[in-house]
Amino acid sequence: MRVLGIDPGITRCGLGVVDVDPSRRASMVFVGVARSSTELAQHFRLAKIADAIDHVISLYEPEVVAIEQVFAQDNLRSVSTTMQVMGVALAAAGRAGLPMAIHTPSEVKSAVTGNGNADKAQVQHMVARILGLDKPPKPADAADSLAIAICHAWRGTGLLGARGDSTVAVSQSGKLSARGSLTPAQQMWAEAQAAQRRTGAVDPRRRRS
Amino acid sequence: MRVLGIDPGITRCGLGVVDVDPSRRASMVFVGVARSSTELAQHFRLAKIADAIDHVISLYEPEVVAIEQVFAQDNLRSVSTTMQVMGVALAAAGRAGLPMAIHTPSEVKSAVTGNGNADKAQVQHMVARILGLDKPPKPADAADSLAIAICHAWRGTGLLGARGDSTVAVSQSGKLSARGSLTPAQQMWAEAQAAQRRTGAVDPRRRRS
Repeated sequence: MRVLGIDPGITRCGLGVVDVDPSRRASMVFVGVARSSTELAQHFRLAKIADAIDHVISLYEPEVVAIEQVFAQDNLRSVSTTMQVMGVALAAAGRAGLPMAIHTPSEVKSAVTGNGNADKAQVQHMVARILGLDKPPKPADAADSLAIAICHAWRGTGLLGARGDSTVAVSQSGKLSARGSLTPAQQMWAEAQAAQRRTGAVDPRRRRS
Repeated sequence: MRVLGIDPGITRCGLGVVDVDPSRRASMVFVGVARSSTELAQHFRLAKIADAIDHVISLYEPEVVAIEQVFAQDNLRSVSTTMQVMGVALAAAGRAGLPMAIHTPSEVKSAVTGNGNADKAQVQHMVARILGLDKPPKPADAADSLAIAICHAWRGTGLLGARGDSTVAVSQSGKLSARGSLTPAQQMWAEAQAAQRRTGAVDPRRRRS
């Protein structure tokens, strides 16, 4: 399973692609950080992030996109901006016809370190170990995007479905509200769209064989 | 001046295009509502809205895009979703190289009715009168998008610029915080991008003349 993990942010948006085989072995395909300068107006910044996400989807053809939950109880202004980035990321996955999952930060930390309260250094260390990298990916946004991808491949939960599923959770005493799964029809549609997209993008030489 | 007004929403997103001449006379070019079903997962819904905005920009070639401010003190879940739609709309304008402006609901109501607290019926009525329409555009989201476009053409404020401009305002006792303008360099870049876009889309027959 190939997963694109996204750590949403307007200044730095982590983008990591991971392959995970049925025995849960994970390998890194790509990692990068989409950046946008504060010299640009907000809509040009979001456009840059959108372009970067489209580019990574087009180049690495993930089967599913996973993103980290944004919490609404944090600083209102930065949350609003991050929520806009999340909208851009969701729309990018939707336009590519891919299923999309949301994971909370504590799910991500717990999946890769075994501790839902792990700090950034622990996450970076474990991501490097899981992926067999010489050193931890930097900056933290890059490592986080890989952690989100690994988390999704290992847990397999959090897929967005129809009706009533929310892409925001309000955390109260550790209880989290965002969950969902694709309905069978949704799943079929998503798979058909993804297949069509892959077919459209396939190397012509491969078609002859 | 041709303005695309956007009333952001995930279920109904109003999209209205208005031409306003130097004497402030306004005429309607297009009005419509992008809809997305609750049968779809959130990211597919956002993708539909993104497609609709791109389509309207491509067909009607506005010179500027104006959107209504989303307030962060409302219901958290619906605000989060609307903020995601706003992100999608901002990215669409940014990708098209267009300048983008944000107006508060009271600015919009005040511009078209003279009353910042006007109700939906008053806004619909005045939009129809200003644009010389036989009857008010419906649903309200459609009329609102036209009102936002008229508001921007008449006020000319609210353009997003670099550094520190916010696309969210927190309303407290009627005080609003979102403002900004393009720096000269931003403006030049936006104009150059828009010109390039228009040239690329121009009817080949026109090039010959």
